[in-house]
Amino acid sequence: MRVELITIGNELTSGEVVDTNAAFMAEALSEAGLEVPFITTIGDEALNIEDSLRRAGERAEVVIVSGGLGPTQDDITTSSAAKALELQLVLNRQVLENLKKRFAERGMEMPVSNEKQAFFPQQAEIIPNPMGTACGFIVRRRGRIFIFLPGVPRELKVLMGEKVIPFLEKERKEKIAVRSCTLKVFGFTESAIADLLKDVKPGDFSASLAYLPRFPENHVKIIVRGRAAEEAEEKLRRLASLIREKLQGRVIAVDRETLEEIVGQLLRAGGATLAVAESCTGGLVAHRLTRIPGSSDYFERSVVVYSNAAKVQMLGVPKELIDRNGAVSAEVAEKMAEGVRRVSNATLGLGITGIAGPTGGSVEKPVGTVFIALASPKGTVSRRYQFMGDRDQIKTISAYTAIDWVRRYFLNLLSAFSSRPSAKTD
Amino acid sequence: MRVELITIGNELTSGEVVDTNAAFMAEALSEAGLEVPFITTIGDEALNIEDSLRRAGERAEVVIVSGGLGPTQDDITTSSAAKALELQLVLNRQVLENLKKRFAERGMEMPVSNEKQAFFPQQAEIIPNPMGTACGFIVRRRGRIFIFLPGVPRELKVLMGEKVIPFLEKERKEKIAVRSCTLKVFGFTESAIADLLKDVKPGDFSASLAYLPRFPENHVKIIVRGRAAEEAEEKLRRLASLIREKLQGRVIAVDRETLEEIVGQLLRAGGATLAVAESCTGGLVAHRLTRIPGSSDYFERSVVVYSNAAKVQMLGVPKELIDRNGAVSAEVAEKMAEGVRRVSNATLGLGITGIAGPTGGSVEKPVGTVFIALASPKGTVSRRYQFMGDRDQIKTISAYTAIDWVRRYFLNLLSAFSSRPSAKTD
Repeated sequence: MRVELITIGNELTSGEVVDTNAAFMAEALSEAGLEVPFITTIGDEALNIEDSLRRAGERAEVVIVSGGLGPTQDDITTSSAAKALELQLVLNRQVLENLKKRFAERGMEMPVSNEKQAFFPQQAEIIPNPMGTACGFIVRRRGRIFIFLPGVPRELKVLMGEKVIPFLEKERKEKIAVRSCTLKVFGFTESAIADLLKDVKPGDFSASLAYLPRFPENHVKIIVRGRAAEEAEEKLRRLASLIREKLQGRVIAVDRETLEEIVGQLLRAGGATLAVAESCTGGLVAHRLTRIPGSSDYFERSVVVYSNAAKVQMLGVPKELIDRNGAVSAEVAEKMAEGVRRVSNATLGLGITGIAGPTGGSVEKPVGTVFIALASPKGTVSRRYQFMGDRDQIKTISAYTAIDWVRRYFLNLLSAFSSRPSAKTD
Repeated sequence: MRVELITIGNELTSGEVVDTNAAFMAEALSEAGLEVPFITTIGDEALNIEDSLRRAGERAEVVIVSGGLGPTQDDITTSSAAKALELQLVLNRQVLENLKKRFAERGMEMPVSNEKQAFFPQQAEIIPNPMGTACGFIVRRRGRIFIFLPGVPRELKVLMGEKVIPFLEKERKEKIAVRSCTLKVFGFTESAIADLLKDVKPGDFSASLAYLPRFPENHVKIIVRGRAAEEAEEKLRRLASLIREKLQGRVIAVDRETLEEIVGQLLRAGGATLAVAESCTGGLVAHRLTRIPGSSDYFERSVVVYSNAAKVQMLGVPKELIDRNGAVSAEVAEKMAEGVRRVSNATLGLGITGIAGPTGGSVEKPVGTVFIALASPKGTVSRRYQFMGDRDQIKTISAYTAIDWVRRYFLNLLSAFSSRPSAKTD
């Protein structure tokens, strides 16, 4: 079944807003096994809307349109659709009542301009919108299906997921079940992942794999098609488990999960707390960890010790050590981790020091040199990294690596603890 | 002059990648005063590319195409263009030489697959690409102009700005000069801005204004059209200055400048240093400030004191004060700011404490309650805010507000210092 998308709005054709709706809809459709050959974006201009609807209807069985359902004068999608499809606009009394009630509940009278949001092409099937005043609707015409959705991304996403995809799965004649999942990989390049998975035959699982770079992660998306839902789910489970095994613990999260959520769960489950001493990441480790609601249960503190004075004063890093090895060194990273662990009484202490650039690099320690250390009840370990990229990228990948160390610590994946002779124990 | 855009790539029609190229090109064109009525997005499929090129050529004088110029098998834009425009593909020896040299400089032999990147429709004008192997090109055919650009966003942006826009400005028959600038406003809602600017008549300056919400900023974009460049520039200068005045110091930055850059410049110019004590922002203030290269010159440290113990221990906030007023209070914010200033010997100390949610709120201090304090040589001031939004939004707007306090301090815009009786002096 071919589906075309039309996204409408002057803010899109002027480039003021990036069209995330088109990508969201295309992804949801492709995950459901539906093909999207064309996406057309136009401004709020009646003739262009009519023209696009007609052309899309010539090519595709389903046309999904977003945007232009609001109450203002420039919202003309519904009237243009009625014209293009040669249907009358009729008032839907139920929708009008609901709109009035919606305003009344907020102690307001409905503005006259909202009345037009209760008019739809005749025989349209209404898609109620619990989040806003613009209902979506579905029109069948000349063997084609036209679906109209509001342009507010939050509203579009819910209506797309809860109404449109299930609707299209019913409409599809060929009954197939499509199931997908995204494995989020950190610490392997795309080509390294491809290499590790070279013996995996997705065809054996009626599956296809897509590699999606999502800096600093690389995602492996698995899409399985089966005749029945159970069959597809079982194949997806088996293939995902095989790929996870091949990727040696580098799958940090699945689907909507984030690394920070996983690390939070591990800290909570272990009854552990975490304190951080950051230099080159400049607060990004703390920021990422504290984005998670409830993180105050396990995140104790971070000290962003940009100056050497702060490293000495707040963490007890010996000044001589900085003078001798430089602030960017394994020894200082270890002392930072141990220092913040000691002063905070946290279970784990993370230390990060490095050169984010663009200046400050040397031959021995070029921009991107970063030392990460973890102080734990098992002892302290550190490692040198050489990251690539601009300042933002080096900050991001450093913070990510440091946070991932906590995950690897709890999952016994931190090889340093077993192999590194210099690891000290409490 | 009507311009249509065609963006090509399976990653776009599958929704794996959000089409930022289309928005970037549309914005650059609209800033140059060129209208973009249609944007079409298609996968790497020959028939769809040919069809889209033909249709766009029927409607617009200029068609800009991006994507599909790479060396791999699925990059078929050039050959499809030749077919649609009924032109032969011919080898450009100069481009081939350059490609080979490019690889040789990296000590590699050019793979055979790259050879196709030296073939172009006959009489194409080459747009050299210093950043990659895919050159752009321009073809004139039947009174229309077709421009082809690589899909890598970084490369597209440079070629668009340096080659395509100047080229189109020359081609345009109607000689107009278009100049624009974006005023970034923080601390006023869109409707408050509109209200403050209600007496400003953009028409008097041959200008139009656009309001663009860019959370947590609101942008006011001014576009001026004149017959001559000087005239347009003069009008733009006068209108921008008038708007800045009406917005009472809330224009935090212009065009590509960021708030953090401006604050960095002010700290540097004042020979001042900054230290930060963060609670609810969780490191975001430090992260934002340290994104700026060279920020270590003025950013001394941040302590992310998530726990009360850390507030007491690292900043000397009296435990009784926390017990009496709560960790989220004006008094604690002030002690945090003063404490971090004292221990760091920085010129300025910022303190932020609040409730980012979703839990932790109360009737007296609901989610979004945030206290910000600044300790300075002039004394300490604090203020209570009530922010709206989810956890991420409250973190962002809190961090932004705190950083903006530093700007306002240096520009003598921090009213608290003049009006607040409780301000203490060193």
